[in-house]
Amino acid sequence: MQTDNTVFVGNKPVMNYVLAVVTQFNNGADMVAIKARGKAISRAVDTAEISLNRFLEGVGKKDICTSTEEIETDTGRTNVSSIEIILTKI
Amino acid sequence: MQTDNTVFVGNKPVMNYVLAVVTQFNNGADMVAIKARGKAISRAVDTAEISLNRFLEGVGKKDICTSTEEIETDTGRTNVSSIEIILTKI
Repeated sequence: MQTDNTVFVGNKPVMNYVLAVVTQFNNGADMVAIKARGKAISRAVDTAEISLNRFLEGVGKKDICTSTEEIETDTGRTNVSSIEIILTKI
Repeated sequence: MQTDNTVFVGNKPVMNYVLAVVTQFNNGADMVAIKARGKAISRAVDTAEISLNRFLEGVGKKDICTSTEEIETDTGRTNVSSIEIILTKI
């Protein structure tokens, strides 16, 4: 779910990811990227909004970008949308 | 689904919204805002990506912003995430 300063959002409850984001900032990170693909994009936005509104002070949204990724599935290659939300200390 | 230059994404198939976006640009719009709330956020990102990748030339993503809205439901007030993706002619 997590590599350095990046939280990958999947199908777990949103609070799992909120906790991961908050923990990274509490451990001294200046920047955390929240990433997701496909249907998990909505949960990534929830993660950012809940983290900022309820748990983080002095942190803001630096950048939000979306893109299309080509992924390999068992039925061949397909396109999927992805999002990256960058939160930074302000 | 549509007011001037804004396409509200809900639960219909994504291509409905792609068609609405493309039609607005073909009718001379310089800017189209794609908006969604909650689980439809993923579909809004799909709408933007598919429109740009497959149907629109000379159009780009000008801005993407997310926020939290308070809405009235039958069980009281609740927060929901929302997204706005601004596409403009470049």
